[in-house]
Amino acid sequence: MARPRRKIDLPVSGSRRYLEPGPIVLVTSAYGDQRNIMTMGWHTVMEFTPSLVGCVIAASNHSFGLIRRSKECVINLPTTALTDQVVGVGNTSGAEIDKFEKFKLTPQKAQKVNAPLIAECHASFECRPADGSLISKYNFFVFEVVEAHVAGSPKHPETLHYTGDGVFMIAGKVISRRSQFRPGML
Amino acid sequence: MARPRRKIDLPVSGSRRYLEPGPIVLVTSAYGDQRNIMTMGWHTVMEFTPSLVGCVIAASNHSFGLIRRSKECVINLPTTALTDQVVGVGNTSGAEIDKFEKFKLTPQKAQKVNAPLIAECHASFECRPADGSLISKYNFFVFEVVEAHVAGSPKHPETLHYTGDGVFMIAGKVISRRSQFRPGML
Repeated sequence: MARPRRKIDLPVSGSRRYLEPGPIVLVTSAYGDQRNIMTMGWHTVMEFTPSLVGCVIAASNHSFGLIRRSKECVINLPTTALTDQVVGVGNTSGAEIDKFEKFKLTPQKAQKVNAPLIAECHASFECRPADGSLISKYNFFVFEVVEAHVAGSPKHPETLHYTGDGVFMIAGKVISRRSQFRPGML
Repeated sequence: MARPRRKIDLPVSGSRRYLEPGPIVLVTSAYGDQRNIMTMGWHTVMEFTPSLVGCVIAASNHSFGLIRRSKECVINLPTTALTDQVVGVGNTSGAEIDKFEKFKLTPQKAQKVNAPLIAECHASFECRPADGSLISKYNFFVFEVVEAHVAGSPKHPETLHYTGDGVFMIAGKVISRRSQFRPGML
């Protein structure tokens, strides 16, 4: 059973450490009296400062409308402890159910946006829109991370990386090659 | 010592399986008598058909000019067997050295582009530009994968996922939740 994780605030530029490895994330949104969660695998870091993240949110998703209208979302990082919730969220529609209730995930108040954080996730990144010029053509949103919250431990939790076909790769083991990097490249 | 991998052609839509998990990739380019390799961690799948990949290539990279002029590149997927080469490529400049020679990587002729494949990589995706409208603002390129080549084994090689600070997560172990997916969601 996944439990709420106590988190600390992080400089927003630090979100890169969690998102650049390419994990599946859970995106939360809210508009009016509606709220939702979706799984997302198509995202990339785009800049350190401001802290930009680009991502594809298909127009067929219930979350698409909530995010377009509210102009906000939270990108939450689940660990492998939440694998069943990740799969459940990705295979249901927020038009039919409340996914927080269905999957026993705890909504938490964010600092700068109305969309809720997911307490059980390892990290949460509050996002506001930075560039919408590719939404109509590719459903591609560019968000700025405006607030970052991360659990203090474990330092490198196991994360899920989706390959399609119901199969996830798991990343967790880490290796450092820091000594081989030029200072400006770290 | 990494050895050349024998590869088979793959439908381009299959590139998602290799890129969506978010691995570090090696991008090759060529223009005139110049060629280069760069490491890239900021990329995302954007569409299945056509097979689109969005990525950030900083203007300060030697590869940026080669790719803008040639309008082509190859995205190559290294495994952990190539960790030292990945780090070396990322910490040197193609303006000063030939990275194929320096890092003992074997250029191979591609089918549809002039940029070379890297024979030692597990997979190679030949790319042509699909949308350049966000290049000037974010160095963000949208490419179409026009040809895909993948080694037949191992089925799930260990890949490198960069976190910054010289540290990589390693993904290799896989889990399937296929039975919990709705057919249309696979």
